[in-house]
Amino acid sequence: MALQTVITELSTFLGQRVTRSKSDLELHGRSETHFPLMPPDAVAYPESTEEVARIVRCCAQHRVPVIGWGVGTSLEGQAQSPQGGVCVDFSRMNRILEVHQADMDVTLQPGVTREALNEDLRATGLFFPVDPGANATLGGMAATRASGTTAVRYGTMRQNVLALEVVTASGETIRTGSRARKSSSGYDLTGLFVGSEGTLGLITELTLRLQGRPEAVASAVCAFPGVKNAVAAVIDTIQVGLPMARIELVDVASVKAVNAYSGSELAEAPHLLLEFHGSEASVAEQSETFGAIAETHGGAGFEWATKAEDRTALWAMRHNAYHAIKATRPDAKVLVTDICVPISTLAQVIEETRMDLEEAGIHGPIVGHVGDGNFHTSLMFDEGDKDQVKAVKAASHRMVERALAFGGTVTGEHGVGLGKLSYMDEEHGAGWAMMGSIKQALDPDNIMNPGKLVPPRN
Amino acid sequence: MALQTVITELSTFLGQRVTRSKSDLELHGRSETHFPLMPPDAVAYPESTEEVARIVRCCAQHRVPVIGWGVGTSLEGQAQSPQGGVCVDFSRMNRILEVHQADMDVTLQPGVTREALNEDLRATGLFFPVDPGANATLGGMAATRASGTTAVRYGTMRQNVLALEVVTASGETIRTGSRARKSSSGYDLTGLFVGSEGTLGLITELTLRLQGRPEAVASAVCAFPGVKNAVAAVIDTIQVGLPMARIELVDVASVKAVNAYSGSELAEAPHLLLEFHGSEASVAEQSETFGAIAETHGGAGFEWATKAEDRTALWAMRHNAYHAIKATRPDAKVLVTDICVPISTLAQVIEETRMDLEEAGIHGPIVGHVGDGNFHTSLMFDEGDKDQVKAVKAASHRMVERALAFGGTVTGEHGVGLGKLSYMDEEHGAGWAMMGSIKQALDPDNIMNPGKLVPPRN
Repeated sequence: MALQTVITELSTFLGQRVTRSKSDLELHGRSETHFPLMPPDAVAYPESTEEVARIVRCCAQHRVPVIGWGVGTSLEGQAQSPQGGVCVDFSRMNRILEVHQADMDVTLQPGVTREALNEDLRATGLFFPVDPGANATLGGMAATRASGTTAVRYGTMRQNVLALEVVTASGETIRTGSRARKSSSGYDLTGLFVGSEGTLGLITELTLRLQGRPEAVASAVCAFPGVKNAVAAVIDTIQVGLPMARIELVDVASVKAVNAYSGSELAEAPHLLLEFHGSEASVAEQSETFGAIAETHGGAGFEWATKAEDRTALWAMRHNAYHAIKATRPDAKVLVTDICVPISTLAQVIEETRMDLEEAGIHGPIVGHVGDGNFHTSLMFDEGDKDQVKAVKAASHRMVERALAFGGTVTGEHGVGLGKLSYMDEEHGAGWAMMGSIKQALDPDNIMNPGKLVPPRN
Repeated sequence: MALQTVITELSTFLGQRVTRSKSDLELHGRSETHFPLMPPDAVAYPESTEEVARIVRCCAQHRVPVIGWGVGTSLEGQAQSPQGGVCVDFSRMNRILEVHQADMDVTLQPGVTREALNEDLRATGLFFPVDPGANATLGGMAATRASGTTAVRYGTMRQNVLALEVVTASGETIRTGSRARKSSSGYDLTGLFVGSEGTLGLITELTLRLQGRPEAVASAVCAFPGVKNAVAAVIDTIQVGLPMARIELVDVASVKAVNAYSGSELAEAPHLLLEFHGSEASVAEQSETFGAIAETHGGAGFEWATKAEDRTALWAMRHNAYHAIKATRPDAKVLVTDICVPISTLAQVIEETRMDLEEAGIHGPIVGHVGDGNFHTSLMFDEGDKDQVKAVKAASHRMVERALAFGGTVTGEHGVGLGKLSYMDEEHGAGWAMMGSIKQALDPDNIMNPGKLVPPRN
């Protein structure tokens, strides 16, 4: 009843932009990975902050859930609707509002994707560095505190969001932060909303830091006798202060998958893929320094490339790693999981994970943003094979437990959503209860993305 | 009555480490700047997290205020006790617990000062970069989201605190964050406590990011015909991606004060003071690139120094600027205020501020962390001269209004405390009310540093 009332009321100002078509509901109920379909009851396509505020006020009045949607590339079910409700799709709020060149920032709507932004910035000499791989929306990336290959140099969304406009659970519009580069003016509400996964409000506008395009860019690839050697090289590289823009690990299984998929001919050994940004001279110096470090750790076949097409090929290979891995078992489902640990423990955690998967007979290639201590496994399974499903879930569980045992976190960048909810208590203890108190204070009726991130209500 | 009960109870486990001596109360009631004495009712010197938790539980039971104290160098009255209560002095919790060299982080107690930490790290090749000038405690720096001269390169406390242990308002001990470099695991509680000025809990342990000591360091000093030219040079420098470690502006009045105080012979013009970190080659390249940029903006007398003693002299001069400025009017009181604006507006905001002060007949030298758009004025006044007191307060007020009019924030790094409380509503609007809701949820009896940062309770 409440739902029908809400939809009727939304139609009065959204017209055809609120729908209940089966295809729309299914599209907005799906997940990139292994979660089953959890569709909303309706999908709304607002075109302005005021429309978002009206949607939320209407849902708040009738206690109907509100779930934000970017392009659906989140990996832990963040945008699915386990309790139904109204899914707010931001695809029509995709305008870049203001680029401030001297201040190196941009204000935009949440439906802008990162590739669209960088395309738009092409003429300015500026770019937005955070790169999770998928062409996600910037609203979604902020909501899930996304990061990716460049976080080692430029930080995650936490460091790159300056200010937000947010529609709160009561349908009020607030602004957090400002275009000033720093502030000590009160609680960091911007930081609170970044990573809150739509459970405290909907982001309707963002101001992001931009970076100047480097004068020179060089990429490099280097094989190592083992993961341990590769990680040791990374630690040394960070210690000497080399400002790598990217430093990625691909394990043997991933190398094989990538070779098969992209036609590359990498040696069947763990590799580091790197990128250096700077002046011509500094990029050359960085490459040389890294080459010397790699050599002391048994690195072989070190090659560096400054030509744009070679670099593009290298990073396309890395970004396609997930597809390459999926292509090794085209009929399999994939459980993707990510953890992050102190870098001193990374080699051991990866090695234990690899041995564990081997013993369990699970195909699960590993790739990692190794400069941050963050890595992913793609655990492949046959959906119809109950034992395999169980084995894969158990292996993923042990991997998360390993992260906590080594002083890390249950997710470095994929977020909590539905997939990591059961680990929040173990990771945060009383801190998780505190998250629940904040949620209770800011969303007393629990309408914003219910069933995610915080403890269930009694 | 409640107070006496609390003190009696605290004595049972703190013994002589809870005091009501007049000298102790006065010491913990004073401010670095112009605020009158606001002493607590008692001062406690805990030696462990468990003692802090017992103190807070006892105060919570009797609804007695709890105020944290580092070394008292905050500038907006954050550690003063306008409503009395128990001041928790962290000077006995000053142990460095663990240095993780490979992970480049350190875990320590809140009473460690930044100079003590860097002294301790000397042999490791690592350092902690955040440098607000004063030798503050790291607990205090986290609580007030401190920054300073190096924030342009290394970030503020927001970017440099990885994890915290906090005693909450109910006396519970929680841990936020971990030693992993990044996480998407739930609300950013670490970020919420950094900058909360003791209004949500007391920080009892911190894990901080460290940096590798650069192979080479060079400092530079350069005079400009006007503030506008200096700021234009800074904007260009940032745009080309030069990773300056420090880039500081001193105006003519500050140069005169510094020359008189330190015996330096800087030309009486606005100056930029800079520092470059990197390899020998990259530092040389950065210095040359900056020299060329400075020249196009009328920079003159550009000199760079790689010798440690020359660099030390330069930064001692900058760090002593406040004392140098005070020495120009030894009998005067100083109202120090800081704002932060988008850098494209900085030259205009500084120029309008300078003209405003001139018209009002106020001596108020300006220094700034210009790479962040952040600057300070030290407004000098004779405490006995009511008109001057009024004029200085009015000028400070106009400066804050100017920050907001230009899209900035009322404080870049000094924080809210008592001094900026009256501007929170104007800066944050409904966001300030949201801060109040969070405070209400996490400290329902309003015992943690009451009267600061959030809206007053009804």
